[in-house]
Amino acid sequence: MDNGARMIWGREDRESASDKIILDYIKNRFGVSDVIEWDGIYRRKNLGENSELLSLISQCLPPDRISFRSEDRILHSMGKSAMEYASIMDGVDVPIVDAVIYPEEDEIECIMNKLRGKGIIISYGGGTSVTGGLRPNSQHGYAVSLDTRNLNVFNLDERSMVLEAGSGLLGPDIERRLNERGLTLGNFPESFQFSTLGGWIATNAAGQESNRYGKVRDMVLGIKMISPRGTFTDHVVPAESAFFRVADIGIGSEGTFGIITRAWLKVRRVPDRYYYKAYMFRNFSEGLEVLRNEFTSGRSRMVARLSDDQETSLSLLAAGDSAAYRLFRSYLRYRGVHDSGSILVVMDDSKIDIKGGVGLGPAPAKMWSRTRFDRPYLYNELIRHGIIADTIETSVLWSKAQDLYSAVVSAFRNESDRLKIPSIIMCHASHEYISGTALYFTFLFYSRKNKADVLRSLRGAILNAILASGGSISHHHGIGQYLSDLLPAYKGSAFELMSQLKHFLDPDNMLNPQIIK
Amino acid sequence: MDNGARMIWGREDRESASDKIILDYIKNRFGVSDVIEWDGIYRRKNLGENSELLSLISQCLPPDRISFRSEDRILHSMGKSAMEYASIMDGVDVPIVDAVIYPEEDEIECIMNKLRGKGIIISYGGGTSVTGGLRPNSQHGYAVSLDTRNLNVFNLDERSMVLEAGSGLLGPDIERRLNERGLTLGNFPESFQFSTLGGWIATNAAGQESNRYGKVRDMVLGIKMISPRGTFTDHVVPAESAFFRVADIGIGSEGTFGIITRAWLKVRRVPDRYYYKAYMFRNFSEGLEVLRNEFTSGRSRMVARLSDDQETSLSLLAAGDSAAYRLFRSYLRYRGVHDSGSILVVMDDSKIDIKGGVGLGPAPAKMWSRTRFDRPYLYNELIRHGIIADTIETSVLWSKAQDLYSAVVSAFRNESDRLKIPSIIMCHASHEYISGTALYFTFLFYSRKNKADVLRSLRGAILNAILASGGSISHHHGIGQYLSDLLPAYKGSAFELMSQLKHFLDPDNMLNPQIIK
Ligand SMILES: Cc1cc2nc3c(=O)[nH]c(=O)nc-3n(C[C@H](O)[C@H](O)[C@H](O)COP(=O)(O)OP(=O)(O)OC[C@H]3O[C@@H](n4cnc5c(N)ncnc54)[C@H](O)[C@@H]3O)c2cc1C
Ligand SMILES: Cc1cc2nc3c(=O)[nH]c(=O)nc-3n(C[C@H](O)[C@H](O)[C@H](O)COP(=O)(O)OP(=O)(O)OC[C@H]3O[C@@H](n4cnc5c(N)ncnc54)[C@H](O)[C@@H]3O)c2cc1C
Repeated sequence: MDNGARMIWGREDRESASDKIILDYIKNRFGVSDVIEWDGIYRRKNLGENSELLSLISQCLPPDRISFRSEDRILHSMGKSAMEYASIMDGVDVPIVDAVIYPEEDEIECIMNKLRGKGIIISYGGGTSVTGGLRPNSQHGYAVSLDTRNLNVFNLDERSMVLEAGSGLLGPDIERRLNERGLTLGNFPESFQFSTLGGWIATNAAGQESNRYGKVRDMVLGIKMISPRGTFTDHVVPAESAFFRVADIGIGSEGTFGIITRAWLKVRRVPDRYYYKAYMFRNFSEGLEVLRNEFTSGRSRMVARLSDDQETSLSLLAAGDSAAYRLFRSYLRYRGVHDSGSILVVMDDSKIDIKGGVGLGPAPAKMWSRTRFDRPYLYNELIRHGIIADTIETSVLWSKAQDLYSAVVSAFRNESDRLKIPSIIMCHASHEYISGTALYFTFLFYSRKNKADVLRSLRGAILNAILASGGSISHHHGIGQYLSDLLPAYKGSAFELMSQLKHFLDPDNMLNPQIIK
Repeated sequence: MDNGARMIWGREDRESASDKIILDYIKNRFGVSDVIEWDGIYRRKNLGENSELLSLISQCLPPDRISFRSEDRILHSMGKSAMEYASIMDGVDVPIVDAVIYPEEDEIECIMNKLRGKGIIISYGGGTSVTGGLRPNSQHGYAVSLDTRNLNVFNLDERSMVLEAGSGLLGPDIERRLNERGLTLGNFPESFQFSTLGGWIATNAAGQESNRYGKVRDMVLGIKMISPRGTFTDHVVPAESAFFRVADIGIGSEGTFGIITRAWLKVRRVPDRYYYKAYMFRNFSEGLEVLRNEFTSGRSRMVARLSDDQETSLSLLAAGDSAAYRLFRSYLRYRGVHDSGSILVVMDDSKIDIKGGVGLGPAPAKMWSRTRFDRPYLYNELIRHGIIADTIETSVLWSKAQDLYSAVVSAFRNESDRLKIPSIIMCHASHEYISGTALYFTFLFYSRKNKADVLRSLRGAILNAILASGGSISHHHGIGQYLSDLLPAYKGSAFELMSQLKHFLDPDNMLNPQIIK
């Protein structure tokens, strides 16, 4: 595939019966035909080699770790966001990096020196960014994608449960090697299979089990970061009182402060066993209140995913119209939960006993767990039919969660009415804290034309409602290019602290230049 | 007391029988007489009012919140460190602040403006600093101590378990008001009774129950900080992916980046009950290995204090020569633990069952808990007799803990031999992590003259051994003036990040100027 690259999720397709049911339901509801609007491959012609750029960077690394191939360059110029897919489907020309490099750690300084004043470097981990964080900008001279895959040290201090790991390691690389020793890092974002440690750190990611293992900020003892200004490394100690660590500013820095080349991480023992349980609530509001009660009382669970009515009905739909499913629905009605309701799936390493709701036994939670990394494959099918599915997530104190939820849903519905497009919005509480919860909104729409514009309007409506309701600008996806315009107002004067550090670390603005403006 | 201030611990003395036993033992061992060398009050004459300074700052705050009184100024010019006591006993003139002010939040900006180019501001919380962090420097014009006691907001969002609290609140103020609602912040440094929230944040303090509640860095959702450059405030959300927060750099900044005026903190429910248990190990090394096993396996306990042989024998001594105590010793011998041994006291909110060691039942742990804030009163007695007691603490990975411990003890003994002074060093593991432990060294010595020089040499020997063994420069006391010379080398190039931010936030170097040089 020399003039194109597969942009949709995974190396190949996957078929699932429940995806088919949901796809048909949505196509039907949106009035979308069977026509494939896009096959998921982005093609571009005439991406030639640039000899000046080649001669610059080949002073730092051997030719077999420099690529000008179209497929590589296309792949490295985008993440996996709805906005990028929408632009492609709108027929807009997406900016493409001029080269992809695969350096080792000690070559990075040289590359920065050679490109200074001549181009920009965009760190590329697994390419699962959903914030436009990987998108190059041609205004800055050459755009080079620095793929971290060769940053792959792996040293385990098992006595101290500390892993030193290269930022280019993928989720499964890390977990497989730790699991062999009965250990785990415990970071399982939905993108786990294709995302890297460096990407996780750069975005302060949150895995599905973050209630137990924390966000990345809680896992990292220290990092090594290479910037145009120099190389910065933390001490590897359990805790210290000595101002801030490199990690404190490097986590969440999205490739703008430096390239994170390795990190030291706390690891844990894999739990002996897991327990699963699901509950049904009359509505989202009732479920949220039960979660609040549990988490504010210190009864945290590894995973507690509470879906609102819309998401619940779609996931029940996916269960199919089997006899078992009909029986299940009549049981729910018997227990006082009617056609709309809010499902909570819980997974933990100790017995689960949540006070409130109607217990559904373990099956729905086990089902969630079995398919926990599969949702993006369903999205592939939607995208092929021209249906855009995007997500926006936030976190909010318990005291404001209900209002935020209502505000977002109504803002979205108003905007979508105004635009006169068929759409769905749904939500789940995805990660819980003592003080509040992350709320993860998924929305779908169909528009034959101007998909990117429509998407931008809908996103804007959701984000404004979130910010007006006291939610965080992002709980785990990060800022990237799509939120960078909102960042200065969100941060207020604290934005100056970021710009100062940015300016110090990267005076020529050569690292991911479009995020901190 | 207009020409002096009580510098030793507490508002008044306390007598305890066990303190008397230990005091006598040490006096005996060191060959120290009964003479009182210092009464614990520091006196200075001729501390007049400065009218220019008064007219400057009275533009910002009313006269009843400005003090030129000797007692106030002396008290605000020092912390509670052995180094400060040693200097006083050596007869050295300690630098004294020119005024003490007690501003409200909205007066701080004005004060910074008026003092710019004319003086420095040292934030003063409870004055329990042990790092020289409060010591003024006359090279910088006027030195003004900014006492935070009027920064005392207290707003509880109980639904979200979030407390907004003023930095000037003392430990007991916070806990009492939370306890009324069945809640706790959970930060109990030994200095709890006289230290403030702002001091805790500025030093990234660790309470005795930090294994459960975390260090301050783990408790804080956000801070408000006022710097000469402006005011910076965090969003109050459970978690975010949006670069770093003000808290990420403000925690541990020791008054050098700005004055922390308030913070938003996670609170928890007070546990239903506490369990206590103590264990005896043949030696420190055996005990450390058991702790390592427990904590790396995820079996964390709220408090687990493991004393080395020296500290154990002193604490057994304190138990007195009662019949019960003799019985206890014979029991230990019967169980195979002889005169030297290492005691572990454990407190938790669930049943304690540690594998290894000889169980001693709950009594020693309950005793520890009852007297957990009392040690400084014993130190008062030592100081009066001219005996210096100091502490240096670090944190280290489990894999390096044993070696660090041995290196410190032998470095200390060598140095103390070289100096030909009587001394004792002891240690306990004070705060444990999955990855390692904090080690808290206490050392005592007697020198008739040049106490400060001797102390400096002993501290140097310990610190060098710690740093050479991979320990952190400090686990929870912070840097202050005593470690500021070591900080640049410890931080390496990362020190530049701190200086950059310092320079940005405080371009005239008017806030605690002697820490980041
Ligand atoms: C289907 C799907 C599900 C997702 N689920 C989750 C989820 O559950 N939780 C979650 O947190 N996120 C999730 N994400 C978002 C994304 O997976 C995360 O942001 C992830 O951390 C990115 O890792 P990556 O290796 O793919 O990084 P990339 O996408 O390659 O890069 C992400 C950003 O980090 C920068 N970067 C990458 N590596 C480095 C480095 N070594 N040094 C400095 N900067 C670097 C890049 O320049 C870019 O700005 C999901 C995304 C998708 C598409
Ligand atoms: C006997 C004893 C026991 C101790 N035990 C512990 C312990 O168990 N754990 C522990 O962590 N520490 C301990 N300490 C050290 C000390 O108590 C802590 O550092 C504490 O956090 C200091 O709080 P404070 O309010 O007394 O601050 P201060 O001593 O008044 O100030 C400490 C530092 O913070 C700065 N500062 C204070 N308030 C602010 C503010 N609002 N904004 C900006 N900067 C500010 C000061 O300028 C100074 O540099 C102990 C000290 C003593 C004497």
